Amino acid sequence: MSPLTQNAGRRLSAADHRRLDELFARFEELGPRCIGYPCNRDWDYSELYRFLSFNANNVGDPFQGSLYRQNTHDFEREVLAKFAEFTRADPGAYWGYVTSGGTEGNMYGLYLARELHPEGIVYFSEQSHYSVPKILRLQHTRNIMIRSQGNGEMDYDDLRETLKLHRDVPPIIFANIGTTMHGAIDDLDRIKAILAELAIPSHYIHADAALSGMILPFVGDPQPWCFADGVDSISISGHKLIGAPLPCGVVLAREAHVDRIARSVEYVGVNDTTIGGSRSAFSPLVLWYALRRLGDGGLKEIVDRSLTSAGYAVAALRDRGIDAWRGENSITVVFPRPPEALIERWEIAPDRDIGHIITLPHVTTDAIDAFADDFASALAPSP
Amino acid sequence: MSPLTQNAGRRLSAADHRRLDELFARFEELGPRCIGYPCNRDWDYSELYRFLSFNANNVGDPFQGSLYRQNTHDFEREVLAKFAEFTRADPGAYWGYVTSGGTEGNMYGLYLARELHPEGIVYFSEQSHYSVPKILRLQHTRNIMIRSQGNGEMDYDDLRETLKLHRDVPPIIFANIGTTMHGAIDDLDRIKAILAELAIPSHYIHADAALSGMILPFVGDPQPWCFADGVDSISISGHKLIGAPLPCGVVLAREAHVDRIARSVEYVGVNDTTIGGSRSAFSPLVLWYALRRLGDGGLKEIVDRSLTSAGYAVAALRDRGIDAWRGENSITVVFPRPPEALIERWEIAPDRDIGHIITLPHVTTDAIDAFADDFASALAPSP
Repeated sequence: MSPLTQNAGRRLSAADHRRLDELFARFEELGPRCIGYPCNRDWDYSELYRFLSFNANNVGDPFQGSLYRQNTHDFEREVLAKFAEFTRADPGAYWGYVTSGGTEGNMYGLYLARELHPEGIVYFSEQSHYSVPKILRLQHTRNIMIRSQGNGEMDYDDLRETLKLHRDVPPIIFANIGTTMHGAIDDLDRIKAILAELAIPSHYIHADAALSGMILPFVGDPQPWCFADGVDSISISGHKLIGAPLPCGVVLAREAHVDRIARSVEYVGVNDTTIGGSRSAFSPLVLWYALRRLGDGGLKEIVDRSLTSAGYAVAALRDRGIDAWRGENSITVVFPRPPEALIERWEIAPDRDIGHIITLPHVTTDAIDAFADDFASALAPSP
Repeated sequence: MSPLTQNAGRRLSAADHRRLDELFARFEELGPRCIGYPCNRDWDYSELYRFLSFNANNVGDPFQGSLYRQNTHDFEREVLAKFAEFTRADPGAYWGYVTSGGTEGNMYGLYLARELHPEGIVYFSEQSHYSVPKILRLQHTRNIMIRSQGNGEMDYDDLRETLKLHRDVPPIIFANIGTTMHGAIDDLDRIKAILAELAIPSHYIHADAALSGMILPFVGDPQPWCFADGVDSISISGHKLIGAPLPCGVVLAREAHVDRIARSVEYVGVNDTTIGGSRSAFSPLVLWYALRRLGDGGLKEIVDRSLTSAGYAVAALRDRGIDAWRGENSITVVFPRPPEALIERWEIAPDRDIGHIITLPHVTTDAIDAFADDFASALAPSP
């Protein structure tokens, strides 16, 4: 494929080959017990590996032509159209791109918001992902952290009281559509009611829907979460519910917003609309492949099964005396922080006094039972 | 590998398979004529494809432990150690990570600089990469664009005059170690002399060494460019001289700087040291593989051959009456902007009145001759 015309004679040493084999074995061994992170493992993209023999690059805006033609902008646009459908964007009135992951998507949304409202204050809850304060610091944007409730949702009273003190500047609401730890969904209807009650004329809502953005399109009674419910931009991860070998995601925004800031960006002399410059041409292919292979039916099956497993896990843990629970339409099963040995053994991501598992398809009922048994024994008084 | 336990029956349609085949054919056809972008194509990473069957993720700091153990932090640290050697960092006194590309590396460097010098002004030349104004806008950092000379280097007189007006705030110098269009290297000795002449007590220098950062370690008489020459952070691309199927890069910084801002980041409540959150575990493997397979000898061969080809290209174009030239230690061959048909046919990236080719190993003398002939015929008066 790529002719090693020059360094053809150079090969990896036997010792280095062994290191790769060891890494592969380590990865294989870890797989079955990884139940604590929101990464679906039920996929196979080997048909796409052949595209890794090219220096493909999606540099630039997927909706504009690029002089660098080894790109997958056409596949990227199809992926975006599908996500626009999931997020109930107006067809033809959205813009977006495939990102290197959730952080870039949230960074884009907060950047767009700040460009539209330079004096705006970002309100985000203490259960927002840990990258949010980092992004806000990087972007030098005014911001206030709002308290959370025990279930992981924003504390709406704290939001109201805080907004009251700053009615002179546009609020930028960073809404968690599924918090990292609790899978909790901030209530957009309540938030919008508070904004209306305070007669705040202008606001912006960004939705961090990393995991739940691929659940809610497939449930019967979703909470408000998407463009149809008033959000202005939304970030969804690709490597979480869909599953991918590399972190990736999608960010979408109302095109009118993007157009408004485009003019000022042009003033700076560039029309460099994405945050990354060179961008992976492989990630859009991975997402396209998954969406085309699974279809809406296959995605719904993943969601249905994951929700069923989550219910099973709550019951299995409670049966063993562990106080587990989950939110509505959530596949994140929350429980008291397990002992350290369990955290290590099952790759649980703990946060202060809680832990969770995320019941994606690779998390079988056998794995759930084994984890619940392990958890129960660890808590039992030693003889 | 990844058991398709649930959606095993779902396959891509024949029509979708055809689309992938068409894409593959399109990429194959474009390959040989792509001489205008700085992407080495002389590699083969197929031995690593098996690692794409895992949800590996290098989330977090490569030098700290991660609870998510399907990572390649150990390989990443080896890559960083090698780049620390190339950039003459003090062993044990640097920090860094593998990025998703040059933009993230430059963003990190400018973020670190701004955190160290919150009132600082960034000085960058008009030949800096087009992403730099975007990053500065995103980060809300004060900045001033400095004029460039005809050869692509910063206009040092303009820098001096501009610095004079702002001696009260620390300058953050964004130095191009190889500009995108001319391959020009900003003269760090002259810049440091100007800072000394103006008795400016404190400054920061970030080096954008996207392409040349992998050339200068292997030439006999490099211009000043690295940690030993006084830079504070440096960004180098992985998919350019080394070559990779996905954009990637490395950013390195003096550890003392990183430690100083770590405290304030902790105050924000996170120890999330990289800009991306979830990060590719595959990119560090790709870079590790290339570095181990090629060794310093193989990398030097790539650089030697590319420099020889650049000399050949300058001569080939001049022989045909085209005014081509290149800078010292540069593999970027600059010439007057070619007609549009040529830009399209050879994937040339033009900028206003110039164009260039980058003579990486896949750019053979045959391709150079063919391009030069094509260029000459296009300029010849039609009969």
